[in-house]
Amino acid sequence: MAKTIDPYGSKLVEDYQNLIEDFGLDTFDKSSFPNPNRLMRRGVVFGGRDLKRIADCIKNDKPYYALSGIMPTGDEIHLGNKMVVENLKYFQDHGAETIILIADLEAQAARGVSLEEGRKRALNFHIPAYIALGLDPEKTKFYFQSDNKEVIHKAYEFSQKVTLNEFKAVYGNADPGRIMSAVTQIADILYPQFEERMPGVIPVGPDQDPHIRLTRDVVGKMKKEGYVPPSGIYHKYTPSLDGDIKMSKSKPMSCITLPTSPEEACEKIKRAVTGGRDTLEEQKEKGAVIEEDMVFELLKQHLVEDDDELERIYERYSSGDMLSGEIKELACEKMTEFLKNFEERFEKAKRMTDDLDFVEFE
Amino acid sequence: MAKTIDPYGSKLVEDYQNLIEDFGLDTFDKSSFPNPNRLMRRGVVFGGRDLKRIADCIKNDKPYYALSGIMPTGDEIHLGNKMVVENLKYFQDHGAETIILIADLEAQAARGVSLEEGRKRALNFHIPAYIALGLDPEKTKFYFQSDNKEVIHKAYEFSQKVTLNEFKAVYGNADPGRIMSAVTQIADILYPQFEERMPGVIPVGPDQDPHIRLTRDVVGKMKKEGYVPPSGIYHKYTPSLDGDIKMSKSKPMSCITLPTSPEEACEKIKRAVTGGRDTLEEQKEKGAVIEEDMVFELLKQHLVEDDDELERIYERYSSGDMLSGEIKELACEKMTEFLKNFEERFEKAKRMTDDLDFVEFE
Repeated sequence: MAKTIDPYGSKLVEDYQNLIEDFGLDTFDKSSFPNPNRLMRRGVVFGGRDLKRIADCIKNDKPYYALSGIMPTGDEIHLGNKMVVENLKYFQDHGAETIILIADLEAQAARGVSLEEGRKRALNFHIPAYIALGLDPEKTKFYFQSDNKEVIHKAYEFSQKVTLNEFKAVYGNADPGRIMSAVTQIADILYPQFEERMPGVIPVGPDQDPHIRLTRDVVGKMKKEGYVPPSGIYHKYTPSLDGDIKMSKSKPMSCITLPTSPEEACEKIKRAVTGGRDTLEEQKEKGAVIEEDMVFELLKQHLVEDDDELERIYERYSSGDMLSGEIKELACEKMTEFLKNFEERFEKAKRMTDDLDFVEFE
Repeated sequence: MAKTIDPYGSKLVEDYQNLIEDFGLDTFDKSSFPNPNRLMRRGVVFGGRDLKRIADCIKNDKPYYALSGIMPTGDEIHLGNKMVVENLKYFQDHGAETIILIADLEAQAARGVSLEEGRKRALNFHIPAYIALGLDPEKTKFYFQSDNKEVIHKAYEFSQKVTLNEFKAVYGNADPGRIMSAVTQIADILYPQFEERMPGVIPVGPDQDPHIRLTRDVVGKMKKEGYVPPSGIYHKYTPSLDGDIKMSKSKPMSCITLPTSPEEACEKIKRAVTGGRDTLEEQKEKGAVIEEDMVFELLKQHLVEDDDELERIYERYSSGDMLSGEIKELACEKMTEFLKNFEERFEKAKRMTDDLDFVEFE
């Protein structure tokens, strides 16, 4: 087993090592965090910015926050959201004040979802889904962007600290709507610090890095304000079942979103790209090429919690003792169990949205 | 007397005729408006956009609005603000719903004035000053930008309708802070139409045209929303007492702001550039060159209400019957009277800010 940042390997490792260099991230060091979660243990979490600051808060029991946003468009979430929640939950379980903002202003601006509709979708789907995925509703504060005047007011202030060129450098484009959303995100990310400065960590996939980078730039320009630059923790994308780096709705047969029926998910798993050999003999002799196997990746990232169990699957599959059809069947079973469990928890969570802890604004 | 758009002439006329062409304005036609005010009668109001729409509302007693904003920075206002108020008052007296917004978000973002400070300044100075200049507080609705969530929410929506290139074309630059302010102004300008679409008129100096132009562009792109493109009414700048096109605080000795002491104002008037001749004899023989006379311009724009009186001054001064020293003395007297009157009305207005009609938000 290669000792890369990804202990189980994947052809996509190289891309993430490039990202670490391109973005100027630190390679994630799981030994800094007590009881690392599945994603941390297995190199799915691959990088960070200023994570030592967060590790110190955990170690010394100091206040810090973990924050993420929900864009209330559509009525499904993807496996990347699942990873965000799992990392949020890790920090929540390790002393972080946890804040979830509903980006209803952005959903309205960018996708034409009315604020009323955004609110309804968040309450009826996105928030219950996040709770179903593990977020503790009793330890989480929620707010709607459109309610949070402080965030909006600060967005105006922060907008003065970014030049158009910086903006273009970070985002690639700089349309006015994009700019409005981005400066609001800066304010969202710093919101838990308005009252009292403290470290905070934002779990993201690589595509969300611009927000963290821009926020850190703005903090750097407002030194006398004393904001703590937000830390970022970066997880890999769940690869598309056809082998592309990221699952995407543009290829629906290679993409599993939540909610979905076990039948549909299993159908997609059946068609997934594996590292199985061309013939049964070759497979039995050489074993599967795990690095190219999207089904193993799915088990590793999402479906097998126990490390020993995953290790056994790895051994059997890479040694030729297990066939591609078998690992697909296993993944289908595990996925079915996960989906049923998600469905149950989701229905339960939906019934408790009246009791959520929304930040109160005057 | 030359029959230009400015019946009393001024060397600066040509600049405004160029502006009309450059901006694509209509030359202002005072005959469309009943009982035109001093600025309208004298060509100080020189142009408009879609003013026929407003004239029709007045004629047919249909609902429309007049709107302006106050940026609560500093504790003085300039004579350009005075002209804005006079035009607002004209429309207020002719059936317009009148709205004044306090741009506290912009003052915070662009000038670092905290929202609390901006609110205080607006209530203690800017609003009473506007009332002292003629705005009827009982017929005016006020709001603070920072209170008006609807405006902010719509700003996000409108930001999606402007491209960076349009923005640059209209404003020359496109810094994120400028963009935030500008899209908020679009929402401010359209705010009275959120509930019910209707024409509206914004009195401005030429430098405020970009806001009107951009708002009209956005309205044009949202045809199915049915907003009525806002009309603009354009007044000339009060020229700097040294002869430049615009009074500016960068030349304090040529700039009269409110409040000021009569002594200080008269001292500045004494030093003003006039159209007087080099010698007493020449002056008596040829009369003053009114077109170059900043003191006459001050009387015309601000200090002499009665047209016959102004006409008499014009005749005497241009015929050589009146000397530059005399017109300065006259201007000093009139200015003193105006300033005393302003001071009195201001103090009275300050005592009534508790009774102002602020828009209520949930």
